[in-house]
Amino acid sequence: MTGGRPVPMMKAAVFVEKGRIVLEDKPIPSPGPLDAVIRITTTTICGTDVHILKGEYPVARGLTIGHEPVGIIEKLGSAVEGFSEGQRVIAGAITPSGYSNACLCGQCSQDGPRSRHGFQAMGGWRFGNTIDGAQAEYLLVPDAMTNLAVIPDGLTDEQVLMCPDIMSTGFAGAEQGGVRIGDTVAIFAQGPIGLCATAGARLSGATRIITVDSIARRMEVSRRMGADEVVDFTACDPVERIMELTDGRGVDVAIEALGTARTFESCLRVLRPGGVLSSLGVYSGDLRIPLDAYAAGLGDHKIISGLCPGGKERMRRLMAVIDSGRIDLSEMVTHSFTLDQIEEAYDLFANQRDGVLKVALRP
Amino acid sequence: MTGGRPVPMMKAAVFVEKGRIVLEDKPIPSPGPLDAVIRITTTTICGTDVHILKGEYPVARGLTIGHEPVGIIEKLGSAVEGFSEGQRVIAGAITPSGYSNACLCGQCSQDGPRSRHGFQAMGGWRFGNTIDGAQAEYLLVPDAMTNLAVIPDGLTDEQVLMCPDIMSTGFAGAEQGGVRIGDTVAIFAQGPIGLCATAGARLSGATRIITVDSIARRMEVSRRMGADEVVDFTACDPVERIMELTDGRGVDVAIEALGTARTFESCLRVLRPGGVLSSLGVYSGDLRIPLDAYAAGLGDHKIISGLCPGGKERMRRLMAVIDSGRIDLSEMVTHSFTLDQIEEAYDLFANQRDGVLKVALRP
Amino acid sequence: MTGGRPVPMMKAAVFVEKGRIVLEDKPIPSPGPLDAVIRITTTTICGTDVHILKGEYPVARGLTIGHEPVGIIEKLGSAVEGFSEGQRVIAGAITPSGYSNACLCGQCSQDGPRSRHGFQAMGGWRFGNTIDGAQAEYLLVPDAMTNLAVIPDGLTDEQVLMCPDIMSTGFAGAEQGGVRIGDTVAIFAQGPIGLCATAGARLSGATRIITVDSIARRMEVSRRMGADEVVDFTACDPVERIMELTDGRGVDVAIEALGTARTFESCLRVLRPGGVLSSLGVYSGDLRIPLDAYAAGLGDHKIISGLCPGGKERMRRLMAVIDSGRIDLSEMVTHSFTLDQIEEAYDLFANQRDGVLKVALRP
Amino acid sequence: MTGGRPVPMMKAAVFVEKGRIVLEDKPIPSPGPLDAVIRITTTTICGTDVHILKGEYPVARGLTIGHEPVGIIEKLGSAVEGFSEGQRVIAGAITPSGYSNACLCGQCSQDGPRSRHGFQAMGGWRFGNTIDGAQAEYLLVPDAMTNLAVIPDGLTDEQVLMCPDIMSTGFAGAEQGGVRIGDTVAIFAQGPIGLCATAGARLSGATRIITVDSIARRMEVSRRMGADEVVDFTACDPVERIMELTDGRGVDVAIEALGTARTFESCLRVLRPGGVLSSLGVYSGDLRIPLDAYAAGLGDHKIISGLCPGGKERMRRLMAVIDSGRIDLSEMVTHSFTLDQIEEAYDLFANQRDGVLKVALRP
Repeated sequence: MTGGRPVPMMKAAVFVEKGRIVLEDKPIPSPGPLDAVIRITTTTICGTDVHILKGEYPVARGLTIGHEPVGIIEKLGSAVEGFSEGQRVIAGAITPSGYSNACLCGQCSQDGPRSRHGFQAMGGWRFGNTIDGAQAEYLLVPDAMTNLAVIPDGLTDEQVLMCPDIMSTGFAGAEQGGVRIGDTVAIFAQGPIGLCATAGARLSGATRIITVDSIARRMEVSRRMGADEVVDFTACDPVERIMELTDGRGVDVAIEALGTARTFESCLRVLRPGGVLSSLGVYSGDLRIPLDAYAAGLGDHKIISGLCPGGKERMRRLMAVIDSGRIDLSEMVTHSFTLDQIEEAYDLFANQRDGVLKVALRP
Repeated sequence: MTGGRPVPMMKAAVFVEKGRIVLEDKPIPSPGPLDAVIRITTTTICGTDVHILKGEYPVARGLTIGHEPVGIIEKLGSAVEGFSEGQRVIAGAITPSGYSNACLCGQCSQDGPRSRHGFQAMGGWRFGNTIDGAQAEYLLVPDAMTNLAVIPDGLTDEQVLMCPDIMSTGFAGAEQGGVRIGDTVAIFAQGPIGLCATAGARLSGATRIITVDSIARRMEVSRRMGADEVVDFTACDPVERIMELTDGRGVDVAIEALGTARTFESCLRVLRPGGVLSSLGVYSGDLRIPLDAYAAGLGDHKIISGLCPGGKERMRRLMAVIDSGRIDLSEMVTHSFTLDQIEEAYDLFANQRDGVLKVALRP
Repeated sequence: MTGGRPVPMMKAAVFVEKGRIVLEDKPIPSPGPLDAVIRITTTTICGTDVHILKGEYPVARGLTIGHEPVGIIEKLGSAVEGFSEGQRVIAGAITPSGYSNACLCGQCSQDGPRSRHGFQAMGGWRFGNTIDGAQAEYLLVPDAMTNLAVIPDGLTDEQVLMCPDIMSTGFAGAEQGGVRIGDTVAIFAQGPIGLCATAGARLSGATRIITVDSIARRMEVSRRMGADEVVDFTACDPVERIMELTDGRGVDVAIEALGTARTFESCLRVLRPGGVLSSLGVYSGDLRIPLDAYAAGLGDHKIISGLCPGGKERMRRLMAVIDSGRIDLSEMVTHSFTLDQIEEAYDLFANQRDGVLKVALRP
Repeated sequence: MTGGRPVPMMKAAVFVEKGRIVLEDKPIPSPGPLDAVIRITTTTICGTDVHILKGEYPVARGLTIGHEPVGIIEKLGSAVEGFSEGQRVIAGAITPSGYSNACLCGQCSQDGPRSRHGFQAMGGWRFGNTIDGAQAEYLLVPDAMTNLAVIPDGLTDEQVLMCPDIMSTGFAGAEQGGVRIGDTVAIFAQGPIGLCATAGARLSGATRIITVDSIARRMEVSRRMGADEVVDFTACDPVERIMELTDGRGVDVAIEALGTARTFESCLRVLRPGGVLSSLGVYSGDLRIPLDAYAAGLGDHKIISGLCPGGKERMRRLMAVIDSGRIDLSEMVTHSFTLDQIEEAYDLFANQRDGVLKVALRP
């Protein structure tokens, strides 16, 4: 970036102010010793990005948005070994360092700064939050040896596009809920994350999966992802309906995949004593635990919240699921845009028009 | 109970109405095929009994109160094997059947009725709740083969009096919190259950235990039970103080041992990301999960609630702890009464006079 | 069984001596207070029964053989509640009491006698081992409230015939191995238990399942149960082949489903460091842990052995799997006989003739 | 290492050939970008080093031996953040990268190379095995951000000298065995690792700890570390004795802390059904699992082997244990030498003369 040499530039979707994410020119990043720079071939928009757009989640003005990268290694940092330029890779939405105390406790998503505390809430979420993100032509991936995951031969960008966030988060809903063979599971909301939670519950051996939504397309996809019963919450009280479907027994695991106080509470109301509420949603207000549903604290309930697991081993496993053909998430990519059309893409996605589930963005 | 033969009678502390628990005459129970009748030698009063006395927790008029029995087997049901009359035994406050679906899932405290559902919130708590309890001369123990635990030779009634409830509940605070070697643990409230939680955290390897209370005697006992720091919540904000003591890191496990929305919330506020809130309290209103302390649902927090574990294997293990000399809970028995003095005992205990922790009641 | 009244009699397959299991007349059992008597509608023969027939596993002369009952409740013991005569039920091969210390630790299969020890190796296996078994017209089920599981409406005898043993054991192979989403799993031997282990691994989310056998029919069924690769051990060295298929990485979980020292050792040789050997086989000699495959004890390997889980909750869950349609094990029932043809059935099954997997026996 | 500038040199204990470890001059290492160089202030000799000396474990000629460093940061690699030169630190015997697939699975000790496999048996053990070790004036610590752990103020070198290996390994014996409140635990051999396993079992809540050794001093220290009973295997059959002490019940967890086939087998023979064999030893030959002790594979036994956990979070936790005063391992450092006396130190330690447990070596 010295003297006469012109700095190579790229396009990037940048947060300007509430209501405005626009495409701007930025310098192509150059990697520090532990980093990699990847050339993005496909990325997507997440509900969290819409929160940012609406000003509901604050990020720095000028930050590049996005945290779901698929690309090709363009340049590796001087200390990075085990990868080579030109490899097709993904990186998780969460990019843990690998060396924080949180990581060494197995809690990579709460990756702490390089200080004595070792933990920071959501500290592992860096792309499009604390550093520039993936809705750009190039992306700097920090701690590349921890985070780059090579795409198996034969998988397309679309096939792995859900791995960095949606699939990792949704599957975590089943995993942190401890879903096991023979369980009955309820999942509130069947947006992209809820649909992946449904798929994850099915893959984990749940034998009765009851999902809740009201949008026809999502309800259809829900069945294909593994739901045995799909409850339309506009047609009945979903809590009553689930209790009825389970003969009053309740469910073993309830997964919250929307992020509202109401669905959180509904999860508690359909849980059997000793059941697990697995919370995936990003909430925007305080939550309430109703005394009766919580059996005054004596019901042996567990409430487990989680942030999307990241790191290359997680990505390797998720791509192995795709590669095995056990599940096909490509129908969740309903629309495709070029990066130049990003404002249009945000408009479609934020307003959930045209049956959109997820969009593919291609620089 | 036939014809001319007079029914043998006993004294029992009976709930009459809000504010009145009195000693009455009742027939000595006779065991069904799976039951045992024990002659109570020592029992005690629990905070829950005070809730019943105050009318805050409804039970049937005429029910004998109490759920912490130490006694001698008087008579065994016809189908009971493996025990003999005259053995000194305890039974847990929670008396699971052993054969419900809940029991066979390892969730004995949520023991269900003999129906298809298999789970019932708090269903394992029967003594002094759904069947006659232990504040009496004799007690019928249901499912005796699951619930009778023989007292090791050499242990006194006082030494094992905490096992049925207080010790089992308090230790569960550490166990369900997953306390392990090297953890920092905070415990809110140092009544009898909180003190046992402190002892349980210490036994589980916690290396920093911070407790919160304000009563001088409890704070003293807290140190002897294992606290490294005792915070007086009347002298400072306990949340701030705990964050200060942990250099801003927070604790690995926070144990709620009081049963108020405020302490529940404080537990969340002192937890590190990825930490566990282990809830023991019996709440009397809705609980609130504050958005910030909960990191909007993204902090990998776990909230685990639990009801006192019961059953003979649990009791065997707790008595083994006492027998090993690892811990001595006998100083928690601060006062002693005969059963005849039960109203006096309730008065002292309910009003926490005279530094009372627990009382021994002897028929 | 008194005076002039003739004792009602039934047919039962009885062990007489090495090489002879014959149909004899025996009194129909009558239930003690905790028992139930069921009229067998379908049962089957297990590999363990063949060991008994060959004199390799000693049982008492005159014992009725068999531990896989499907039937109808004929008579309930006086203390049994929650069931009614005429209900269609199964009971697991393992019939835990529910009240032993082992049961209360969650280790029902090691159910101990009603003594102070509380554990007995294999103590939960009673049918056809320490009490009369299921290859008869009637069967006494001990501890009926713990062990009777009502068959969901609409399921046939054949559909649930694998639940009591084969399916419970095979699924436990995946469960005790901790198989999870994204795992690579190897399963040695694809007899009925190995096939169920394959199905269990698939249901648990394994994304690469490699099985080993040499019999064409079993290899075919293996693929239908979930195998991605089936290795014929007569055509190659299965250890080498598995290492090749995994690019030298090895598998996350290796399941032993035969019961030989050789396959046990092969499991260790295909495990990655940190992997789990899940052992299902019944061995007939000492096992060897080779120093190199075990990394001199420093490879973080886990070796988990297990005996078929029993009890009504286990049976409920397995029948829920069948009922959900996730899996269909009925093709494993390859032959059908009446109880009168039992000697013929043993001959076919013991000699693995005619592509037999499992037989249905109907009194 | 260029031209005219003389390379700074240091003393290091180097493996020359079977039977010869000698002090030699070597260049002081200089750190790569991710490394740190520490000036050793105290180190020690481990049983593994004696295996190397005797030629039983092959390492490269010329390699510096030793894997238990206490020192001061001399120089940090260019990419290392969060530490500063002059800080007092330790590093574990095992130095995981933090970014291998094994690390990201929580199996840091099986840290793999930077390749696609991601696992390598014992790959995390680098010091004195695959790279130069700690018996020297200076030590290069790889992946410094993962491995450097700052010593809390007020702790001496001797106090933390056991953390890098002996304490981490011994405590892992209790941890991987799942020792919990109320357990009975047997530990075979009370050398330094066995003694730490005893301390770890005590800290984890075991209420009955039975240890086995024959050396008087070790038997004494064993009691101080937490043993309730110490069995002298020269005076009785330790298996018989342990079964007698447990009234025939056997133990919940048996820890192997010697590394012989015989003690491994003894562990199995004292386990109750469903118990855990926690293996710490480094074996030098095949192991045998006896059919009877293993209940033919049907006893629900678990055999868990483990290599010393490393990484800075592990070290932080272990130092927190020391700092809390819960345990004092300093009496295990029985002798002190300068680095110059290393041959004398090896002679004493290898021949277990003069009641040696561990030696402190000071450059």
